Amino acid sequence: MKEVIAIIRMDMMNKTKRALTGAGIDAFFAHEAQGRGVGFVNRRLIEGTQHGYEEAASLLGEKGKLYPKRMVTVVVRDTDVADVVEAIVGVNQTGKPGDGKIFVLPVADSVRVRTGEKGLKSIS
Amino acid sequence: MKEVIAIIRMDMMNKTKRALTGAGIDAFFAHEAQGRGVGFVNRRLIEGTQHGYEEAASLLGEKGKLYPKRMVTVVVRDTDVADVVEAIVGVNQTGKPGDGKIFVLPVADSVRVRTGEKGLKSIS
Amino acid sequence: MKEVIAIIRMDMMNKTKRALTGAGIDAFFAHEAQGRGVGFVNRRLIEGTQHGYEEAASLLGEKGKLYPKRMVTVVVRDTDVADVVEAIVGVNQTGKPGDGKIFVLPVADSVRVRTGEKGLKSIS
Repeated sequence: MKEVIAIIRMDMMNKTKRALTGAGIDAFFAHEAQGRGVGFVNRRLIEGTQHGYEEAASLLGEKGKLYPKRMVTVVVRDTDVADVVEAIVGVNQTGKPGDGKIFVLPVADSVRVRTGEKGLKSIS
Repeated sequence: MKEVIAIIRMDMMNKTKRALTGAGIDAFFAHEAQGRGVGFVNRRLIEGTQHGYEEAASLLGEKGKLYPKRMVTVVVRDTDVADVVEAIVGVNQTGKPGDGKIFVLPVADSVRVRTGEKGLKSIS
Repeated sequence: MKEVIAIIRMDMMNKTKRALTGAGIDAFFAHEAQGRGVGFVNRRLIEGTQHGYEEAASLLGEKGKLYPKRMVTVVVRDTDVADVVEAIVGVNQTGKPGDGKIFVLPVADSVRVRTGEKGLKSIS
């Protein structure tokens, strides 16, 4: 089993829900989050910080601000990971910075609380 | 070490806190989340989507709505996972849809920021 | 790749952002969370609960309350984990309870949605 975590634009939530459902995934959960990707920060400020310039460091804290995002999490069997990733990328890829990130994490076990079922049975 | 993530009903938070504490776990954190489980979605709509019916696809986005949930996370030693899962299932199992899910993820390391302690020492 | 999750004080967010950026990490995301660490709970209440005292159990639910926290998550290459942990500990360690926790989880894969890049390329 794998946990697929997608950090996406806030306004892509409905499209992503539909894409996941279309890919056969109807159990998932979501959070509000804030985030920022590579490239949102002025590299000169970072270098200034590394050279010990206090002013650069303080600018970084204010300028490198975080953007509101949505985080969607699904736990799926290993053989479904590629389809889930493709479904998420398919609706979220605009080609502009801020499209988001997907992370795939190993899952050791899963339990359906209602029945006590464990493992793959609990996620299908 | 393992991370145990439980997605539970909002009104089960206090009972779950007590159950965890009773199981010897007093360090954990929680989030608000939204979620939905298997069975909350009309399978006919999903099949319609897969056959390319635009109307089915749009209904899915609106109907398959997410419910407010609470997410509780604890990081425990491997030998405590079974007890923690049992404690969470024990108070959250009503037998009705929406009881929630538990996921167990491997943890490579842990650090207590106050002391810098790492590994098992940092979680006990 | 590893996911580094830090549960920190709310008012340490800006310092932590700066420390991460200074460590060469400019992509991360954040959540609001509530949490509590070891030592926030009266151990006598826990023992009372374990011996079946209802009153102790009910006090635990009310007293062992959760504190507002921030959760910061970064996904980095294995060789950057030590630097990231050091950067986070460096700005968050006051020596008082509540400084927070850091968890390091294995990551199986990562995808940059904008380009479809996978693996290490997607996080640099």
